[in-house]
Amino acid sequence: MPDEEGHPGREEMDLRMVLSALADPLRYEVISTFVREEVGTERNCSSFGFDISKSTLSHHFRIMREAGLIRQVDRGNSRKAHLRHEDLEARFPGLLDLVRANPGLPAHRK
Amino acid sequence: MPDEEGHPGREEMDLRMVLSALADPLRYEVISTFVREEVGTERNCSSFGFDISKSTLSHHFRIMREAGLIRQVDRGNSRKAHLRHEDLEARFPGLLDLVRANPGLPAHRK
Repeated sequence: MPDEEGHPGREEMDLRMVLSALADPLRYEVISTFVREEVGTERNCSSFGFDISKSTLSHHFRIMREAGLIRQVDRGNSRKAHLRHEDLEARFPGLLDLVRANPGLPAHRK
Repeated sequence: MPDEEGHPGREEMDLRMVLSALADPLRYEVISTFVREEVGTERNCSSFGFDISKSTLSHHFRIMREAGLIRQVDRGNSRKAHLRHEDLEARFPGLLDLVRANPGLPAHRK
């Protein structure tokens, strides 16, 4: 079962949910950014600089969280996200390499 | 440029379009079926036995064609589709292996 924040366990991840999460330009850019950074890098949602409302941004992060692409954790008074690098490599080998090799077009920004 | 039937060249294929095409359960099942068959296998759209209208089925096949997942060709009085196996392996190495390893749930059928 996913935990109380909706993070699925590694074995619960579903490729179709992951593909669906990645099919959106904004979400693809988030994952594409994480893939290029050091493993374990944590970021605030707002650090990506997307020009959209906070609720829309939260919606996108929820979809990525529920697909298992990212994990969100509370750090004091801020909420940080990181890529579930090890889980994704184990569950869907080659997927992150594909994203790394295909940067795609940048999503709309501020 | 894509040809007159909307088939993109190998280098024109876009991973996000491919992911978006695969994110739908029916389309995922089509590609998942092709991946398990002999390379070069040709099929009619109707051979999959989906319980949907012909126009909806055509729409799904158009999305897969325009993403570069399949090629559709006229064979006398029928239209056949095959997976663009070689192009996909070259352009997105590992993608078909991921689909092969993740059969997913069957889409709604007759």
